[in-house]
Amino acid sequence: MESKPSDVERQVFQGSDEVTTGLDRRHTWATTIRSKLDELIKNSIIGFADGLTVPFALTAGLSSIGSSRIVILGGLAELFSGAISMGLGAYLASVTERKHYDVEREKKHRDVEKCPEVEEARIYDIFSHYGTGPERARSIVESLQANRGLYVKFMMDFELKLERPNRRFAFLAALAMGLSYLLGGLIPMIPYFATPLPKALYISIGVAVVTLLIFGYVKAVVTGTTQRDACWSAVQTLLIGAAAAAVSYGIVRGVNSAEPGEL
Amino acid sequence: MESKPSDVERQVFQGSDEVTTGLDRRHTWATTIRSKLDELIKNSIIGFADGLTVPFALTAGLSSIGSSRIVILGGLAELFSGAISMGLGAYLASVTERKHYDVEREKKHRDVEKCPEVEEARIYDIFSHYGTGPERARSIVESLQANRGLYVKFMMDFELKLERPNRRFAFLAALAMGLSYLLGGLIPMIPYFATPLPKALYISIGVAVVTLLIFGYVKAVVTGTTQRDACWSAVQTLLIGAAAAAVSYGIVRGVNSAEPGEL
Repeated sequence: MESKPSDVERQVFQGSDEVTTGLDRRHTWATTIRSKLDELIKNSIIGFADGLTVPFALTAGLSSIGSSRIVILGGLAELFSGAISMGLGAYLASVTERKHYDVEREKKHRDVEKCPEVEEARIYDIFSHYGTGPERARSIVESLQANRGLYVKFMMDFELKLERPNRRFAFLAALAMGLSYLLGGLIPMIPYFATPLPKALYISIGVAVVTLLIFGYVKAVVTGTTQRDACWSAVQTLLIGAAAAAVSYGIVRGVNSAEPGEL
Repeated sequence: MESKPSDVERQVFQGSDEVTTGLDRRHTWATTIRSKLDELIKNSIIGFADGLTVPFALTAGLSSIGSSRIVILGGLAELFSGAISMGLGAYLASVTERKHYDVEREKKHRDVEKCPEVEEARIYDIFSHYGTGPERARSIVESLQANRGLYVKFMMDFELKLERPNRRFAFLAALAMGLSYLLGGLIPMIPYFATPLPKALYISIGVAVVTLLIFGYVKAVVTGTTQRDACWSAVQTLLIGAAAAAVSYGIVRGVNSAEPGEL
C-alpha cells in the first residue's frame, strides 16, 4: 500500500532539499527564539505586575499610619525582599524542574527497557487522540524503537510533556522577573519621596492607576488580543491592585486603631 | 510494505481491546490527575516559598525600627496584599493564557487552510527530530489531513506546545497559591504577636530557618530527588530567605539612620 510521496515530501527530503531544509532550520530557530522571548516577556509581565500591586498596596496601607518615613522604609524593605525572593525563587524553581526532568527521564529509560509493550501502547494511545489508528502510527513506533535515546525523548516531549530548563536562560529569565518587580514597585513609590502625606497617597494611587492601565493594555497587545480584550485586561489588572491596596489599607487602619498606644 | 501488526497493536485495537482500552483509559486518567496534582503542588510550593521569604524578610527589616506595632502592621499589610496579588495574578494570567491559546489556534486554522504545504513540512520537521523520516511520518500526515480539527490540535500540542488552561482548575490553582502564601507568611510572624522586640526577631529567624529547612526538604522529596539533593534544596531555600531578610534589614536600618527626625 505504498502511495506516491507528496510534493512537499519530495521537496524536503529528496531532490531540492537545500532550500526547504534552510527554511525548516530558519523556522526551528524562529520558533525557539520566539518561545524564549515569550518566556522572558511572560516573566517580566509577572514580575512587573506583582511589583505594581504588592509594594503599592503595602505603602498605601502603611500610609494610614500617617508617617512618610514608615511608608518609605516599609516600601523599600518590601521592594528588595520581593525582588530577591521572586528572582532567586524563579531561578531555583527551574533548577528543581531540571532535576525533576532528569529523574523522570531515568524512569522512562527503565520503562522503555523493562516494559516495552506498555510504552508501545502509550504511543498508540497518544496518536489515537489525533484520529491516527495503530496501523498508521506503527511506522513511527518502529523508527523510535531503533533508537532508545530518541524514543525516550519522544515520550518526554509527547507523553509527559516535560521540558528541561536551560540553566543560563533560567538565570536570565529570573533576572528579568526580579528587575521588572523592582521597576514596577518603584513607580508608585516615587510620590512618597517627593510629597508629604496624605497628598503622596493620592498621587501614588493616581500613578498606580495610570501605570496599571497602560501595563494591562500593553500586556494584552503583546499577547495578541483584540482592542476590546486589551481594555478588559487593563481593567482586570487594575482590579488586582485596587483589591490588594484596599485590603491592606483596611487592615493597617483597623489593627492600628484597635490597639492604640503601643507604637 | 505492509508488515504484520505487532502483538500489542492487535491487542489494543483489534481483538481483545476491552482490557487494554480500560488500561489505557486508566493510564490517561492517571496522567491527567497526576499532572493536575503536580500543578497544584507546584503552585502551593511557589506560594508557600514566597510567603515564607517576603513577609519574613519585611518584618525582619522593619524590626530594626524597634516597634512591634510597625512590624505587625507592615507584616499584615504585606501578607494580605501579597496573597491577593499572587492568587488573583495567577488566575488572571491563566485567563490571558487561554485567550492567547485561542488566538494562536485561530491563526493555525488559517495556516492549515491557506498554506497546507508549509504545515506539512513542519510535521515532517517535528518527526525528523526523533529520527523518523518522511516516508514513515507520511501516514500520520495523511490521517491528520482527513480531519482539520485534529490537525490543528496536533499542531497546537506538538509544534506550538500550548495548553488551554481550564478555567475552574485555574481558579483552584490560584486559590492554592494565595492560601499557601498566607500560611507561609503567617508562620514566622507569630513571634511578633507573642514576644516583644528584639526577642521576637530572634525567635522569628529561628522559626523561619526551621520552617524553610523542613519546607526545602519536603519540596525535594515531593519532586522526587535523592536525600542528598533534598538537603541541598533545603539549604538553597534557606539562602533566599536569608538574603532577602538581610537586604531588607540593611536597607531599613541604613535609610532609617541616614535621615533621622522625620518619623
